[in-house]
This record gives sequence, C-alpha cells and structure tokens, in this order.
Amino acid sequence: MNKRLEVCLTPALLPLYKVEDYIVVIIDVFRATTSICYGIENGAEAIIPVSQVEECAAYREKGLNYLLAAERDGAVVSGFDFGNSPFSYTPDKVSGKTVVLTTTNGTHALHLSIGAKKIVLGAFINLTALCNWLKTQHENILLVCAGWKNNFNLEDTLFAGAVVEQLKGLQFKTDDPAIAANDLYLLAKDDLSGYLKKTSHSDRLKQLGIEADIAFCLNVDMTTAIPVLQQNKLVKLTA
Amino acid sequence: MNKRLEVCLTPALLPLYKVEDYIVVIIDVFRATTSICYGIENGAEAIIPVSQVEECAAYREKGLNYLLAAERDGAVVSGFDFGNSPFSYTPDKVSGKTVVLTTTNGTHALHLSIGAKKIVLGAFINLTALCNWLKTQHENILLVCAGWKNNFNLEDTLFAGAVVEQLKGLQFKTDDPAIAANDLYLLAKDDLSGYLKKTSHSDRLKQLGIEADIAFCLNVDMTTAIPVLQQNKLVKLTA
Repeated sequence: MNKRLEVCLTPALLPLYKVEDYIVVIIDVFRATTSICYGIENGAEAIIPVSQVEECAAYREKGLNYLLAAERDGAVVSGFDFGNSPFSYTPDKVSGKTVVLTTTNGTHALHLSIGAKKIVLGAFINLTALCNWLKTQHENILLVCAGWKNNFNLEDTLFAGAVVEQLKGLQFKTDDPAIAANDLYLLAKDDLSGYLKKTSHSDRLKQLGIEADIAFCLNVDMTTAIPVLQQNKLVKLTA
Repeated sequence: MNKRLEVCLTPALLPLYKVEDYIVVIIDVFRATTSICYGIENGAEAIIPVSQVEECAAYREKGLNYLLAAERDGAVVSGFDFGNSPFSYTPDKVSGKTVVLTTTNGTHALHLSIGAKKIVLGAFINLTALCNWLKTQHENILLVCAGWKNNFNLEDTLFAGAVVEQLKGLQFKTDDPAIAANDLYLLAKDDLSGYLKKTSHSDRLKQLGIEADIAFCLNVDMTTAIPVLQQNKLVKLTA
C-alpha cells in the first residue's frame, strides 16, 4: 500500500489534488483522447490540443505542416482540415504530421494538470498498453476524467474504472471515487455501449450524428501507443 | 419528463448548478444530516448548523436555551454539551431545545445552496418520508452530497442513489451522476455497511471509534421528520 491510485471525477475537482505528486492520466473517451491515441498510433508526429477554434486557426499561419481539426455542433468548421472524429486520424491522413485539435473538456483537464510528474492520455483503445506501462512506474497515479462542462460523466468514469480494474491489488491504495468508478465499470463492462445508452450524453451524441464515432471509441485495446505531454505537444511515449 | 432529478456529487460542483431552479436536498449521512433528522424528529425546536467551533461557542452567551454540539477528533470539545453522535439527539436531551451543531461538510453544502426554492435534509433514517414528500412537489430536485473535504464520498452518493431509486420513473429526467449514484446504491443496498467497509472513510471512522454511530446512520426509515432550512435554522417541515 505504498502508492495511491485515485480518480478525479471532473476537472473542477483537480484543485483538491496536488498534481505534482502524481502521474496524471487524462481521460476524454468521447472523443478527444480516443482520437489522439489513434492519431499518435498512426504516426502523427505530434498533436497539439487547444481549447478555442481561433487558437487552432492561428496555426494556419505557422506553415502547411499543421493539420487543423475543429468542430462545432458535429460539423467540421469551414476552412479546417477535419473534425474530431477518430476516423480522421488514419495513417494516410496524419502520418508525419502535426495535428492541432480543438477540444474543450480535454484541454481544460490538461491545463489544470500542468506540473504533474508526467501527463499521459488514456482511452479504451489503448487501455491495456496504458495499464502495462503504469504498472512499471513507481508513482502515485491520478486518473483525471475530463467530464462534460466540468461535471461528472459516465463514459470517462467507466474508463477510469477499467484502469483501476487492471491495477487494483498491486499495492495501490484507492480512494472512494476509484472504488465507485471500478464498481460502475464492472457493472457495465460486458456491454459498455448498452450501459451508456441510458445516459443523457448518449442522446446528445445521437443528435450530433456521431454514433459510429462512439462505437469506435468503445473498442478496447486496438492500439498500443501512449500519448505523453511534452511542452504543449502530445507525442508518443518512448519507454 | 418535465422535471429534472440531478445529483451534485460534491459541494465543489455546486457552482455548475443554478440552485434557484431546484429544491435542494443536503446529504451528509455520516453524521450531520442523520443527527439533525433524528434531533428534529425527537422534538428539537431548531438546529443551527455552523462550520466553526468558535461560531458555536458564541451562542453560549445568547442564553441557556441553546445546546452546543462540537467535536474534534471524535471527542466532545471541552465546555460543550455534546458532540455529533446521533445518540446525543434523543428526546430527553433535545426536546424543546435549539441545538447549535458544528459540521464542516454539511454547513458548506448548505451555504452554497442558499437561494434554492427550498433546502431540506436527507439521511437513510428519513429516506422514505423524504421521498414521499418530494413526490408531492412539482419542482426540479437537486440532491447535494456534502462529501468529504469537497470531494466525492461513497456514503452520501449511495443515499442519493436511494432517493433516485424511489423517484425514478416518475417523470423525472436524470443526469449521469444520478444514474451512477443509483447503480451504486443498487449494488450496495442489500448490505450498505459491508459495502462501505471497503472505503477509506471507513478506516478513518473506525479510528475515531464511532462505529456505533455509523451503524445507526445506516438504519433506514426510522423517522419521518424532514428538516427544512428557514433563515439560518433547520426546523421541522410542515406540509
């Protein structure tokens, strides 16, 4: 019981933690961290998360090597290369490129985690690879759910619970949010998609017409790359 | 689906809600709202929650009709009448009296909820009475977990889930925290005490030697009084 394995259920609760004491895992399953994990797996040199469309657009002037991703209400913003769908992060599109990605909840969580021992990204598609790496580290671990507009959401919590499931019993002391996340995951794991259908978020996503994206985001262990924050860029973690 | 039934998992998330739109239920199962529900049931004229021991002590000068309750590290503070144990709130002690109670988490949640349509208190001991009253109201309901030092705790979340269990299906639209709380409650309900044993909070409470209090706090439907906030006092709700 030397190390702590804790879950921060929303970015609004991050001030309660001393991030300096942890490796932080940022979780924004629908869709930012899934798309980023997939893009890094597929050879993107780096992915830069920003919160505002304007911030993203500013990269246009820095050169043609940047791909700009921005969506509003489920549609690619005019003048941008693509949106936030993981299907845009295939090797033919992103290999060797730097992608600037607009993501509100994920960027917010990242910014608040600056100062952590390390900041990595997790999603169902890199679940086991992430957990295997975390097992080799000898640090406290804080799983940060990006949530929805600073509040709790189920999909990020379920993923946190999936990580707890792989790490529990390994000399970690868990907190109440970790216990809750793990129990919710155990309840949902045999049918993640079915479980999430009862959430309000699910309605919202259906209205946006991104059901195929959502199904993709619930694939487990498709990839092995772990994005890590270096300066303001997410790059592939090299052991 | 006219009304909303939502759960605010910690007071730190209260700024995300417009409390004016809701009847707020404050939940601090271990032990503040349990003791208050029990005291009001047992004839206390009013209970005044304050956050600081000094604030509580100041009432001594206002007259002998006040009973002062304050604890630090599980012991009654010297010069006070009793601590926060629900066993102190029996008819012989509190009937006709006004009790000034020191409670950090509960008071914090109360203060942040000022402005709500109504603020009532819930605990397992008044669960069904509370739910029956809530069913007669035609307002949005926000269940506010007092939590632990502004963060999520399991016991308050389980109680929120118990309320959701009685109200769901009754034309309420629930949010993700309400769904999660309800699922955790369903998992724990047959053995609340056993379920809570795995929490870190449980260790802390054991160290404080208040296991009998905790067992009491998990009794369901012992009482029917519902404390409601009027000015700065909690009094018995009269339909």
